[in-house]
Amino acid sequence: MPSEPVPAFDPERFRREGRAIVDWIADYWHAVAEKPVQSPVKPGWVRAQLPPQAPEQPEQLDAVLADLDRVIVPGLTHWQHPGFFAYFPASTSGPSILGELLSAGLGVQGMLWATSPACTELETHVLDWLRELLGLPDRFASTGTGGGVILDSASTGLLTAVVAARQRAAGSDVRDDDTSHSRQLVAYASAGAHSSVEKGLRIAGISRQWLRKIATNAHGQMDADRLASAMDADAQAGRIPFFVAATVGTTSSGAFDPVPLIAAAARRHGAWLHVDAAWAGAAALCPEFRGPIVAGAEAADSWGFNPHKWMLVNFDCHTLWVADRGPLVQALSMKPDYLRNAATESGAVIDYSDWQVPLGRRFRSLKLWLTLRMIGAAALRQRIRDHVLWATEFAGWVRDDPRFEILAEPSLSLVCFGLRSGDEASAALLDRVNGEGRVLLSSARIGSRHALRLAVGGTLTRREDVETAWKELSRLA
Amino acid sequence: MPSEPVPAFDPERFRREGRAIVDWIADYWHAVAEKPVQSPVKPGWVRAQLPPQAPEQPEQLDAVLADLDRVIVPGLTHWQHPGFFAYFPASTSGPSILGELLSAGLGVQGMLWATSPACTELETHVLDWLRELLGLPDRFASTGTGGGVILDSASTGLLTAVVAARQRAAGSDVRDDDTSHSRQLVAYASAGAHSSVEKGLRIAGISRQWLRKIATNAHGQMDADRLASAMDADAQAGRIPFFVAATVGTTSSGAFDPVPLIAAAARRHGAWLHVDAAWAGAAALCPEFRGPIVAGAEAADSWGFNPHKWMLVNFDCHTLWVADRGPLVQALSMKPDYLRNAATESGAVIDYSDWQVPLGRRFRSLKLWLTLRMIGAAALRQRIRDHVLWATEFAGWVRDDPRFEILAEPSLSLVCFGLRSGDEASAALLDRVNGEGRVLLSSARIGSRHALRLAVGGTLTRREDVETAWKELSRLA
Repeated sequence: MPSEPVPAFDPERFRREGRAIVDWIADYWHAVAEKPVQSPVKPGWVRAQLPPQAPEQPEQLDAVLADLDRVIVPGLTHWQHPGFFAYFPASTSGPSILGELLSAGLGVQGMLWATSPACTELETHVLDWLRELLGLPDRFASTGTGGGVILDSASTGLLTAVVAARQRAAGSDVRDDDTSHSRQLVAYASAGAHSSVEKGLRIAGISRQWLRKIATNAHGQMDADRLASAMDADAQAGRIPFFVAATVGTTSSGAFDPVPLIAAAARRHGAWLHVDAAWAGAAALCPEFRGPIVAGAEAADSWGFNPHKWMLVNFDCHTLWVADRGPLVQALSMKPDYLRNAATESGAVIDYSDWQVPLGRRFRSLKLWLTLRMIGAAALRQRIRDHVLWATEFAGWVRDDPRFEILAEPSLSLVCFGLRSGDEASAALLDRVNGEGRVLLSSARIGSRHALRLAVGGTLTRREDVETAWKELSRLA
Repeated sequence: MPSEPVPAFDPERFRREGRAIVDWIADYWHAVAEKPVQSPVKPGWVRAQLPPQAPEQPEQLDAVLADLDRVIVPGLTHWQHPGFFAYFPASTSGPSILGELLSAGLGVQGMLWATSPACTELETHVLDWLRELLGLPDRFASTGTGGGVILDSASTGLLTAVVAARQRAAGSDVRDDDTSHSRQLVAYASAGAHSSVEKGLRIAGISRQWLRKIATNAHGQMDADRLASAMDADAQAGRIPFFVAATVGTTSSGAFDPVPLIAAAARRHGAWLHVDAAWAGAAALCPEFRGPIVAGAEAADSWGFNPHKWMLVNFDCHTLWVADRGPLVQALSMKPDYLRNAATESGAVIDYSDWQVPLGRRFRSLKLWLTLRMIGAAALRQRIRDHVLWATEFAGWVRDDPRFEILAEPSLSLVCFGLRSGDEASAALLDRVNGEGRVLLSSARIGSRHALRLAVGGTLTRREDVETAWKELSRLA
């Protein structure tokens, strides 16, 4: 006979255990700076510590916490470590973590407005707030034909934009019939665009041969003349230029594509322009950085960035705005009989399942709301200013050291650099520095060179951590 | 000048505020049964309560908590209310909420094994545990050619399976060239399959005309003979039958497609067989229910279900297993230079970004791990047994009342029924019952009839809540 079932939710037990977990997390953040940034474990080590079968009978929280310390923490690369400078930051904050906790604690599912009106309306509202904070044009406001939605990632944002673009290219009459085309659809992005462009197109059934990777100039920016020529050539050959992805802040080097020029080419062919500002978008909070970030946005059909990178909201939180929600909803709305309801039929509400790949969704706007309210826009701006300043200082130290060289013009808080003695020496230095455990950097190819990347933006990162990174690099070079 | 920035993470402040949120959630669960299940607010009410702009300066947690009570809670449809019987449950549990909190608190991002080995290995391990608990065949174990992954939803699981199926149909040589086909790909699902099949195919660029909706029999099950005929006809016409979606537990009525017969047809044409057991899958924990749920799984290429429906893990947690991870990884792997690392190149690790649409991912296996450990398999089984028993009792009450009739054979914990006086009367009864606020049911079409659906499975739901549902229906009929 099974034992008496454990109550699935006992509020008093939750109160007790919730406090224990909150304390465990607070202790983790207290101590994270003393851990090696990168996990030292070998493949298979974590699994080897775990029992081969799931437990039949309930265990106590203490046993779980002990395993967290013994098995999980040693197996983590600590993204919240103040010395984490790799990739782009996944910065989080107390309010954001609490927002995620609230979302889980409420346990509502916002696939339709009717399945929790607040889940939908808070999201629409907070994305209108954020649009204004970033200085994005009115066309993305929900009060007009556009609006914003929270998705899991910039990759998914791009796929979502591709699907809307294809719908628009096909015309509104094909929805229930056929979204295939007798003429081939062609997409465009720079050779420096993120891999998610190729991946998103592939998922959408548009193979690599129909993605034109437009060459970049010496600064890693898409060459708008080549884009225009490629689009013209495809159109003349009877193909349909349907989608252009512009990047504001490339992953490798933080390059900004010339969005206004790209927009002009896209407009001439009626192609959908998607702007991926995944990392750099957060810096549009600051008026002094905003100009090049939002340039051309008034001609973009969709524009997305990740508050989960540099705006203190924990992963996952990608925010995507569209200027016209029509083709998006037309492409992604499914209303089987079991989802029909009066609010939907009234036409007066947003059903966010019509704006995304999945049907279900959790209450992610809570963490964005808590972060904006409990940190405030002024402090979010100040953090970005600090990070840009520290990265600029770091770039100065690199420039002043004859052993090193800057490999791409620093962009906001990202610095790409290497050793003058060559790529192999740079790669070896990266391994040594990361192996010491005090900081973690990543790498990228810049042109023909192997560059080290330092991206400032961690939640706990202070100026002195950036100094530590430089001291480690300098010492081990 | 901006004010002094608020520290983004102050452990002592987090400790204090975290406790306040934990207490707020505990209080919410104490009181949720007294609230109307369905939010009574009108479209626009929530937004009208919120200020038009984001705050510049930080606010205190008290202000946020006050707004949660004043604005958010009235705008919720309470999925965790014991009287929530609509759609399928989104059951959660204390351990799962705490797992989500831990995931947010650690703030690691597991796109690669190297970016947090524990994030990857715990997921692989717990999905091997779960595979065994469900009695799924060995072919889905990570120790062979297969393995499991956590995705956000069954819709995304289906899209992921479609993309892998297309890759396999195209052959391993086309990855870097072209995934388009000179011969048309055709997919198959029953007319009773979830709307996510059509949506996933559409996202993948396969239009509705290439989805054959195979007729169902009187029990809502796919007619396997018609499937075989349709596949044969397409193959004879030079098209490629590449993907079959079978459903174990349809959304409308909980019908089980005859997976072994479907598998035989799929195998004959080399088509990928995906089994969607989104809701019913959890019941495979119980040996007495397992047989029909896992029947034919030994011939499936992918098999998915949602622990976030009926297994006490909060949304989002879809678990997808594949028998051969080859085509999946081939279709979805992108390794630009900025993600290259020694562990990936060793071939000894899983990089889960190769198994999913997005690049980034959070540490979702924590909540599955905590739920399995702190609730235990025995109690998870007992809960499912209880729910099936109570649904069976409810169906008996419906049958015994001459005003009512059962409209589909009850399936596990789902009962579809209506008033003998007709569909309009049933619809009116649903509105009245839901309007009273003590319970919430949803509806579906069953054949030509408008059915009321009662799905038992809520975290707090007891037998007496099912009785309340019946008393309300009986009183208002």
